[in-house]
Amino acid sequence: MTRIAIVGVAGRMGRTLVNAVQEDAGATLAGGIVEPGSSLAGADIGELAGLGKLGVAAVDSLDAIVDDFDVLIDFTAPQVTLANLAFCAAHGKRMVIGTTGLADDELAELDGYRDRLPFVFAPNMSVGVNLTLKLLETAARALGDEGYDIEVIEAHHRHKVDSPSGTALKMGEVVAEALGRTLKEHGVFERVGQCGPRDPKEIGFATVRAGDIVGEHTVMFATEGERIEITHKASSRMTFAKGAVRAARWVADKNNGRYGMQDVLGLD
Amino acid sequence: MTRIAIVGVAGRMGRTLVNAVQEDAGATLAGGIVEPGSSLAGADIGELAGLGKLGVAAVDSLDAIVDDFDVLIDFTAPQVTLANLAFCAAHGKRMVIGTTGLADDELAELDGYRDRLPFVFAPNMSVGVNLTLKLLETAARALGDEGYDIEVIEAHHRHKVDSPSGTALKMGEVVAEALGRTLKEHGVFERVGQCGPRDPKEIGFATVRAGDIVGEHTVMFATEGERIEITHKASSRMTFAKGAVRAARWVADKNNGRYGMQDVLGLD
Amino acid sequence: MTRIAIVGVAGRMGRTLVNAVQEDAGATLAGGIVEPGSSLAGADIGELAGLGKLGVAAVDSLDAIVDDFDVLIDFTAPQVTLANLAFCAAHGKRMVIGTTGLADDELAELDGYRDRLPFVFAPNMSVGVNLTLKLLETAARALGDEGYDIEVIEAHHRHKVDSPSGTALKMGEVVAEALGRTLKEHGVFERVGQCGPRDPKEIGFATVRAGDIVGEHTVMFATEGERIEITHKASSRMTFAKGAVRAARWVADKNNGRYGMQDVLGLD
Amino acid sequence: MTRIAIVGVAGRMGRTLVNAVQEDAGATLAGGIVEPGSSLAGADIGELAGLGKLGVAAVDSLDAIVDDFDVLIDFTAPQVTLANLAFCAAHGKRMVIGTTGLADDELAELDGYRDRLPFVFAPNMSVGVNLTLKLLETAARALGDEGYDIEVIEAHHRHKVDSPSGTALKMGEVVAEALGRTLKEHGVFERVGQCGPRDPKEIGFATVRAGDIVGEHTVMFATEGERIEITHKASSRMTFAKGAVRAARWVADKNNGRYGMQDVLGLD
Repeated sequence: MTRIAIVGVAGRMGRTLVNAVQEDAGATLAGGIVEPGSSLAGADIGELAGLGKLGVAAVDSLDAIVDDFDVLIDFTAPQVTLANLAFCAAHGKRMVIGTTGLADDELAELDGYRDRLPFVFAPNMSVGVNLTLKLLETAARALGDEGYDIEVIEAHHRHKVDSPSGTALKMGEVVAEALGRTLKEHGVFERVGQCGPRDPKEIGFATVRAGDIVGEHTVMFATEGERIEITHKASSRMTFAKGAVRAARWVADKNNGRYGMQDVLGLD
Repeated sequence: MTRIAIVGVAGRMGRTLVNAVQEDAGATLAGGIVEPGSSLAGADIGELAGLGKLGVAAVDSLDAIVDDFDVLIDFTAPQVTLANLAFCAAHGKRMVIGTTGLADDELAELDGYRDRLPFVFAPNMSVGVNLTLKLLETAARALGDEGYDIEVIEAHHRHKVDSPSGTALKMGEVVAEALGRTLKEHGVFERVGQCGPRDPKEIGFATVRAGDIVGEHTVMFATEGERIEITHKASSRMTFAKGAVRAARWVADKNNGRYGMQDVLGLD
Repeated sequence: MTRIAIVGVAGRMGRTLVNAVQEDAGATLAGGIVEPGSSLAGADIGELAGLGKLGVAAVDSLDAIVDDFDVLIDFTAPQVTLANLAFCAAHGKRMVIGTTGLADDELAELDGYRDRLPFVFAPNMSVGVNLTLKLLETAARALGDEGYDIEVIEAHHRHKVDSPSGTALKMGEVVAEALGRTLKEHGVFERVGQCGPRDPKEIGFATVRAGDIVGEHTVMFATEGERIEITHKASSRMTFAKGAVRAARWVADKNNGRYGMQDVLGLD
Repeated sequence: MTRIAIVGVAGRMGRTLVNAVQEDAGATLAGGIVEPGSSLAGADIGELAGLGKLGVAAVDSLDAIVDDFDVLIDFTAPQVTLANLAFCAAHGKRMVIGTTGLADDELAELDGYRDRLPFVFAPNMSVGVNLTLKLLETAARALGDEGYDIEVIEAHHRHKVDSPSGTALKMGEVVAEALGRTLKEHGVFERVGQCGPRDPKEIGFATVRAGDIVGEHTVMFATEGERIEITHKASSRMTFAKGAVRAARWVADKNNGRYGMQDVLGLD
């Protein structure tokens, strides 16, 4: 059983992580951290997460639970994460880090810990998205330049402000790279009016914005006679939390190093 | 028996139309047009269509068959179609027009013929598409301005030159009209970069071009908690060709006017 | 502005209803009822719903808010609902009732109120599902016995115990009735092994059980050359709550009578 | 040049195979079989296939063309195929077999020929389907027993007589094998009535039969928070025919053995 502690346990992602740990038969909830001085220190983590009393109280410092946990999961902010890396390296702990928005110097500092503890760092912990990227690479290599047209279709909720999504672009990049193309040259992001027939090397993007769609991505490979479609649909942020818990279990017996989700999933 | 001539009889749609006329007990194949100077002038239309010799030779001008036909079916390009309208108006003929991609001024010119001959103009002649238009109107009226985001997604083969498809635009127009909106004001045909959140009254279009997709259209109505999707998928061009021949038979005894497939199918 | 009160405001559906009222520009939250003697009487309704303080306290009797509301929404239990109907009839209020499981005599008692107050009673308030049923009827009548095969495909989460879903069966019934068929005679619920070719009058059902799918239903009409698919996807129970709030606004200015969601949506 | 004969040359698949052989620069059409006593014996195979006269007459027994061909392509019925295997083994011929719906004992009988002639046996000959099988194996291994429910959904035209399709079963087998399961134990082919919640190890199958659907297969991996779907859609039978001809060329110089499309395409 991997004993897991969660940073930011009172936040939206923290509470989702509590749920994910509780659902995982190979993991046990060992502790949760709130901001220093928070009035929620002492509250039951289960109650914070809407699960009822679990008998584990939130604390406001890692010292208080240093003997209780093996792996720390952290989806917070760059400076918090870096401080936690220092603590975990000093105390023989491991980490799973989903924090985003690190500046270049912060990334370099994070990377410096690769010899000091085992940790997983990934901007997107979704098992499904990471698997999908692998499948796309395999498909693109197999179909090669054999006349298969490639299109990326994505749909997100009405509040999303950028388009196409970062994940759609990443999918397009993976496919482009496998085929020796680039999105800069071959990406087509709009088709309006008399555009003429499709260029065989085009990688097209189509975007839907509607309702409460959490996130759906399809990459289509189509030729005369058949289509292959690889689709990922996220239905809740549990998908990220579950990936993080899986990463925590995986990293629990690894050597020092910086790992990604491709490692966790055995996809490399 | 309605005597039908077909424009572009050597093309993919033209040959399908020949098949559809041959299958229709109420229609007879009266002639077929190829481009002026085409080497296929003189070829047997049946052989062009893979049906064996039918005893009707392709010609490269309407003058050559002016006494032979009642209705001209035209799925070609805007300027060709407008020239054919002028010819048919001058010679007491009727037309069925499936040409798409007309610019606003071309549409206005086409509309000007409504007092000069009877013609059916529809971006999509299939029974299913026209039923779909009816369903869309019902759905739009029922959902009204109740917070449902509307998106039109369409996919066609790699050879299609205009985007979005005429059918997708027609679907958007039907929905817009039911809601007192216009595509001019509310249609969104591209989303690239930092576009900001969706406007509630937007009608979005997303376009896929790949492989041999005959034609797929989905209109999505999505709000918090649910989505309704109305989808039409054409699997062979015969769907359109059969509808066109049905329209040709229907228009053969109508008065001057511009008609749509809702008229032909009695859905209004 | 329709002033809405909610029965069972501390329950899962009650809290969702609070959210739906808050999101609706034409409705205002006028009160919420908890069980008589509940320790939650006096709690802020917004806090119960996870929305923060809204300044409206839960009460344990309708008398306490009789001057505050116009329409009462009730998704509780038969006897509670019938008592509330008596109260609302006596005080010139209206109701929206999503309670299920009424016995025949309870249904008869409920029906007896049709002359005493305006109320909407529907076992499924989802706007989308009710619209979908209407679209299915239209499609089935239009396509009639013209060679379109009809299939119902539904997907739900892993915990669902019955199959096909009640909604899938209802969809099949609506289609069957429009075509003079019955599910008893024409419904096909399994296909395993050498089943032989499809009977043209068959209405087939296919069932998927996986993950956390809230509920997806597609009815397909397919013939040679084309398919029409009408799909409903539920993503949260907000879909039922929003339908109830819409019904509340609708019923606010209606005459005495018992109404259904088809009336609210103007689909009859 | 591989000399190819085709069983069932007057049928829909047989005629498509004739087209595919004619399009393939490395294959030549050596003969075609119709049912014993068929009135089509003696007809030109090219004319049967809509290609015009090719100078090869259909025959009603393999004996009549035993010296003319190297590889026999057979997409017919189990008993016909087994008889043809016996003939080909006895006469030093090779086979490509796309027949589906074999019972266990028929499969065992077929397998018994692996030491007696070289043959390719695959329920689906398309490049896309075989790539899909590879992707499924990758996905199943990566997701392992991590709580992803697996469902196979397939749709075919109204004339298909067996269910689920051979391809759907093959997809299920690939996934099952990757996870140490078997379809015998974990395959679920019907869900009707009160079935109870889903077993986590279940591999479910759902079947749609409608219209002219050439063949669509989706394998869904779904858990709380996300779904991955891998989909193959065939849009014309040429996909299978081209793969079969490619297999025929490939098997022409192989040793005795039973091969699959993964062998032909070098995907293993």
